[in-house]
Amino acid sequence: MAQANTERVLADLYELRQIGEYKSGVHRPTLSSEDMASREWLCAKLRDIGHEAQIDGIANVFGRAPGDGRVALAGSHIESQNHAGWLDGALGVVYALEAARAVAECPNLSTASAGVDVIAFADEEGHFGGFFGSSSAVGELDEATIDAAQDRSGRGALRDLLAQAGLAGRSRLQIDPARYAGFYEAHIEQGATLEGEGNRIGVVTSIVAIWQYRIVFKGEQNHAGTTSMTRRRDAGRTMMELWRRIEDSFPSVAGEHSVWTVGRTVLEPGDPSIIPGRAEMLFQLRDADPIVLDAMQAKLREIVAEIDSEGQCSAHLEIISQTRPAVMDQTVRGTLVEAATAIAPDHWRMMPSGAGHDAQLIQPHVPSAMLFVPSIGGISHHWSENTLDEDIKLGAAIYVDAISRLLSR
Amino acid sequence: MAQANTERVLADLYELRQIGEYKSGVHRPTLSSEDMASREWLCAKLRDIGHEAQIDGIANVFGRAPGDGRVALAGSHIESQNHAGWLDGALGVVYALEAARAVAECPNLSTASAGVDVIAFADEEGHFGGFFGSSSAVGELDEATIDAAQDRSGRGALRDLLAQAGLAGRSRLQIDPARYAGFYEAHIEQGATLEGEGNRIGVVTSIVAIWQYRIVFKGEQNHAGTTSMTRRRDAGRTMMELWRRIEDSFPSVAGEHSVWTVGRTVLEPGDPSIIPGRAEMLFQLRDADPIVLDAMQAKLREIVAEIDSEGQCSAHLEIISQTRPAVMDQTVRGTLVEAATAIAPDHWRMMPSGAGHDAQLIQPHVPSAMLFVPSIGGISHHWSENTLDEDIKLGAAIYVDAISRLLSR
Repeated sequence: MAQANTERVLADLYELRQIGEYKSGVHRPTLSSEDMASREWLCAKLRDIGHEAQIDGIANVFGRAPGDGRVALAGSHIESQNHAGWLDGALGVVYALEAARAVAECPNLSTASAGVDVIAFADEEGHFGGFFGSSSAVGELDEATIDAAQDRSGRGALRDLLAQAGLAGRSRLQIDPARYAGFYEAHIEQGATLEGEGNRIGVVTSIVAIWQYRIVFKGEQNHAGTTSMTRRRDAGRTMMELWRRIEDSFPSVAGEHSVWTVGRTVLEPGDPSIIPGRAEMLFQLRDADPIVLDAMQAKLREIVAEIDSEGQCSAHLEIISQTRPAVMDQTVRGTLVEAATAIAPDHWRMMPSGAGHDAQLIQPHVPSAMLFVPSIGGISHHWSENTLDEDIKLGAAIYVDAISRLLSR
Repeated sequence: MAQANTERVLADLYELRQIGEYKSGVHRPTLSSEDMASREWLCAKLRDIGHEAQIDGIANVFGRAPGDGRVALAGSHIESQNHAGWLDGALGVVYALEAARAVAECPNLSTASAGVDVIAFADEEGHFGGFFGSSSAVGELDEATIDAAQDRSGRGALRDLLAQAGLAGRSRLQIDPARYAGFYEAHIEQGATLEGEGNRIGVVTSIVAIWQYRIVFKGEQNHAGTTSMTRRRDAGRTMMELWRRIEDSFPSVAGEHSVWTVGRTVLEPGDPSIIPGRAEMLFQLRDADPIVLDAMQAKLREIVAEIDSEGQCSAHLEIISQTRPAVMDQTVRGTLVEAATAIAPDHWRMMPSGAGHDAQLIQPHVPSAMLFVPSIGGISHHWSENTLDEDIKLGAAIYVDAISRLLSR
């Protein structure tokens, strides 16, 4: 069986953190010079162990193991949010690197031509839209989408940044599902469930679906001094009324792990002395269970129709996006369960992932599984994000053990 | 008695509308070339009837009648909101011009050296903050405030625009309360009360006070997927909860004419996948009765303290501004009542002004009164704002008759 060298994992993570270091975190937005340096760093590490490594036309790093026996695919993303944490993404990439090394160093597995291909996807963090790297790797990203993509922080068009990074003209590579026995992605939890319970490892059962909506309210813009309360058609007030009904009624239709969020509201024109004639809210819900998702959406539609029919202001529901929940593969996930049970009995649990991950794109093509390590204080997307060294090491040990189990079958 | 030439009033209003014409309204922001042209237009009209007319260092137009017997002050503002109505402000200026002319043409009054001084205040519309002209005219505007003022549409600093308009270095004139028997301001209603009742004239009892607040909520910014509903400290949700309590409880403490408005809300950071860590709302209330104002504020304070003590997120109330209600002078207002009763019996009413007006600044110095004409559909601050010609003419007749009554005493 292959075994992780957990000190090496920590050393690699510390080294990688130096690229784009920001306070105790990193600033490595997709295609920045720091991001590209981190991808080159990974390629060099992979070549050291005999992998054929390259950066493709969308900035995905592909590292192919020499053997063509039983092979696992492993990885995550390597870029960060702006001025964010050192582990989000990087942890999963370094675990994958360690698995590739540990398998290469394991006489039984290497004799059997088993191996671990390593992948670092581009832009899971959504500087240009999200999941471009994993979408491309499974053949679901078209050129028109790339043409249209702009950096959300104003750095410019994706095409221009690809050119500046020297990637224009390179072909985009796709993974070959037939080659792989399974895909593994490790990630920080980004929540506080594990920490709150004293658990150290989470084995992901499914990645939640994210359903996003825009709700637009139209009333009558008017003078806030001369328009009596009874004559008003206040779009803002109608928005508040809808919001209160959501908060009042969702607990009765939601599941145990459901979450819902109003992330943005806009009143127009936004002047203190003008009754808003238009209002807009962005609403999002997440769950892994299609039945619960449908129930929440039905309730939302019901509330919007109710408000709209009351006639004070119109209310219109628009679906922005609806991902599908990704149920993790039973066999691949099973290896994580076996490894966790063997190495950290009583300190792990199964749990859904409330955040989206590259694995949800890969799962329909290659049977996938995910491993979580705790986030201190539940903090993520901030430079202060962190995980105890002991938990990082424990996660690496279980991760490599699980892959080794899959490749030994 | 002096009498309005109502055809002349309409002709002047049509002429004035051509300056900065926009669709059926006008675009004459304070100190724009169109605004300055309208001020020059007024000066010329005033000089035609023997007034000494000038534009002062803050762009107020002062037109001084030749006599120094019994004198009334009359006027309003002449600039407009951006791309807004042709009558808001302009109506009151042209009525004042007509009163000055009618009094000058009236043998009895001119022999008695009675007269009407005409004033067109600068920036009642608040391109630079609001009421700068009338504040200056009563000695309540300091140089530091002018130094700091910026155009809210991005045209630049007030100082620079005063220089471009050729007004830098001119002194700012103040009105001499001892000279005046009263101040008259006519204005469009900007609401739909008169129209809704079939009334054609409003005599203002008082101008409401406007109390403005900022309420800031602080919670914990977090991931909208990985933070369970029970662990959240969602500043946006707390803001909604406060808003609902305002709407639920204010009807029980408010007066018959009270209005309250949430004009702006901000959730930070405003990302659909991030639980807002900070939220802010701008809240405004208006009433003419100090007791009602105090009761509404006490209720607001109570709700904010309640929400804050519930501990989910902090809530903090900040007072942005609190004007005082301006009760119109009984004698001056009495002349409007007499004139309305004589000319339009059964077609006028007394009413508070829900909007702020220059008269609220003048009233503490010169006894003041206001006359309203109906706004079609209650529309104002929009180019489609309008008033029936017949109502414009009726208003002018009553306005001039009232001033004539005051000057004849």
